[in-house]
Amino acid sequence: MLDYPARRALARTRMQQEGMNALLLFLSSHLLYLVGWSDSPGERFLGALITPEREAMIVPRLYADEVSARVGLPDLRIWEEETSPFELVARLAREFGAARGRWAVDDGLPFHMVRRLQGAVPGCTLVPASRVLAPLRAQKEAGEVARMREAARTTQEAVTETLAEVRPGLPAREVAAAIENRMRRKGASAVAGSIVAVGPTAALPHARAAEEPLRAGEVLLVDVGCRYRDYRSDLTRSYVLGEAPVKVRQAYRAVRDAYEAARGLIRPGMALGEVDRAAREVIARAGFGANFIHRLGHGIGLDPKEEPYVVAGNTDPCLLGHTFSVEPGVYFPGEFGLRLEDVVAVTETGNEALTDLPRDLIVLPV
Amino acid sequence: MLDYPARRALARTRMQQEGMNALLLFLSSHLLYLVGWSDSPGERFLGALITPEREAMIVPRLYADEVSARVGLPDLRIWEEETSPFELVARLAREFGAARGRWAVDDGLPFHMVRRLQGAVPGCTLVPASRVLAPLRAQKEAGEVARMREAARTTQEAVTETLAEVRPGLPAREVAAAIENRMRRKGASAVAGSIVAVGPTAALPHARAAEEPLRAGEVLLVDVGCRYRDYRSDLTRSYVLGEAPVKVRQAYRAVRDAYEAARGLIRPGMALGEVDRAAREVIARAGFGANFIHRLGHGIGLDPKEEPYVVAGNTDPCLLGHTFSVEPGVYFPGEFGLRLEDVVAVTETGNEALTDLPRDLIVLPV
Repeated sequence: MLDYPARRALARTRMQQEGMNALLLFLSSHLLYLVGWSDSPGERFLGALITPEREAMIVPRLYADEVSARVGLPDLRIWEEETSPFELVARLAREFGAARGRWAVDDGLPFHMVRRLQGAVPGCTLVPASRVLAPLRAQKEAGEVARMREAARTTQEAVTETLAEVRPGLPAREVAAAIENRMRRKGASAVAGSIVAVGPTAALPHARAAEEPLRAGEVLLVDVGCRYRDYRSDLTRSYVLGEAPVKVRQAYRAVRDAYEAARGLIRPGMALGEVDRAAREVIARAGFGANFIHRLGHGIGLDPKEEPYVVAGNTDPCLLGHTFSVEPGVYFPGEFGLRLEDVVAVTETGNEALTDLPRDLIVLPV
Repeated sequence: MLDYPARRALARTRMQQEGMNALLLFLSSHLLYLVGWSDSPGERFLGALITPEREAMIVPRLYADEVSARVGLPDLRIWEEETSPFELVARLAREFGAARGRWAVDDGLPFHMVRRLQGAVPGCTLVPASRVLAPLRAQKEAGEVARMREAARTTQEAVTETLAEVRPGLPAREVAAAIENRMRRKGASAVAGSIVAVGPTAALPHARAAEEPLRAGEVLLVDVGCRYRDYRSDLTRSYVLGEAPVKVRQAYRAVRDAYEAARGLIRPGMALGEVDRAAREVIARAGFGANFIHRLGHGIGLDPKEEPYVVAGNTDPCLLGHTFSVEPGVYFPGEFGLRLEDVVAVTETGNEALTDLPRDLIVLPV
């Protein structure tokens, strides 16, 4: 379904536009995007060198059989345990006629390898590979959006099933564990750092699930995601156990209206910064401008956060196939926090939300 | 129990020995080691700058409350969304009198940040922070070994309980999922990429758990680990379902003897490379030298792999508090693979295995 040689051909076109002689990837989402396989990065270099004419995988002996079985890139160059993979990279670059000029290097290559690479190809200028790959990755193919819908559905089902069971007194951490276990049983291969936060903890936008119990009258913020067939989901809903205090209801109304204002603008050609601005204006008009302390959204795909960013000042336009979160939120330190988030895909005429849980402040029974 | 200011004092002593003017850490196990907290690295820089006289956390606005609540390092420097964290690092370095000379930089700092750092402090020579920190981290304090024993026990119990239930026909992936779920229920906060491999798949040293079913007469290789209170475990046992073929028994005997030969040598002062050599000689004498295709072991602690490495040619000595895996293995492509692994801690007179599951080839009922 996903055509990796075609992607590498597009990457080569972009390399030429950007004046790059080589693209060097480590184990990363970039590699997954271009060859269909990656793994957790370890202390050994394993990756791909792609030049305008040639391409090869650079693989430690220990992984040779595995990479050979999984990656459809026939030229495998194996390095032995007592040798330097970056010397091999340099030799290969000379063989491929690319041992000079600008190289696009994996954004995630760790510093200890960057240093060895700089030593091995001292004549090259290293720039981040995302300069070549981010625009390609940001515009998802139909097959990618289909996978993201599956990831989104997995998460939405797990949240719905779990929240149907929660009651005051249950520790937030157990709610998170129940959602995560359901996502795994539905086939998710990993879960993101789940946020299940109660009351004042929800005022920390990146709080993790804690031991604190769910309490009647307090806000419960649930922000979870998973990886499913390589692609990511991200979903936030805000709940209240029993009756919502007036301030919570007022603040949620602003968040909900900001969400709708943003969704109404998203279509090909609209500047991403304008989408952020529209949401921000709604919240400011409601009197909560100082409480909306983060950007409106981030791209998502093979990575949980990637381009494009829906942030003030971003003049880049929404493009067909962009997938990003729309997640306005307001935070009141010591009191509570509220956020509403769906991932949307930009369509020809507007946008599609990949999740469709009710978007009102959800009242749970106490 | 763990004294982070004392560790930072030791790090400063080593910085001076190594001629470093500053230590710049990102979200990593280095940061966890020195301040007691870290998080998954994201696209925003968050870390610590430590100089001989001063120390500060550098934190994006969004994480300020969280870091302030969790980290006992009072000087918090916050950067706003539209500014550069590396310009803040450079200003801070000037304020601390450290904006020159050699800097020890987090080994894991991703390339896209390395580039911005190099641009912000062009006069500094960046070298890997592990040069300062690896020797400190390698020699575990008693409190660290105690946590590693807990992590090891968690893993051992999960393996024992799960393997008591397996039968031919069960998919390998379900065995892995059952072990992982048990580790999580026992309090593990993460599990490593579990290997549960059957027959020929076990001949790939880094195979992941697959759909293939357990089969009578075939080898089952189980290599799993977890993180428990920040510290890691790693454990491998080889099983056979029903009667073991002669070749499997012969090969396992060599692995077992190699393990014992290595364990018998490990004590303070013994060169790490000699430990590898002793194991390798036993396997070579049994006629399987070409089938032992990886080093004998790797350090483990906050990271699943860290210094020291038990590898040919390493003349560094075993030291009190070193914790590393001892994991001889033999691999027969297309047939099977066998490995035996415990993590050991170097004691004053020898070494202690943190796991004590039976070390024979374990025969499971069919």
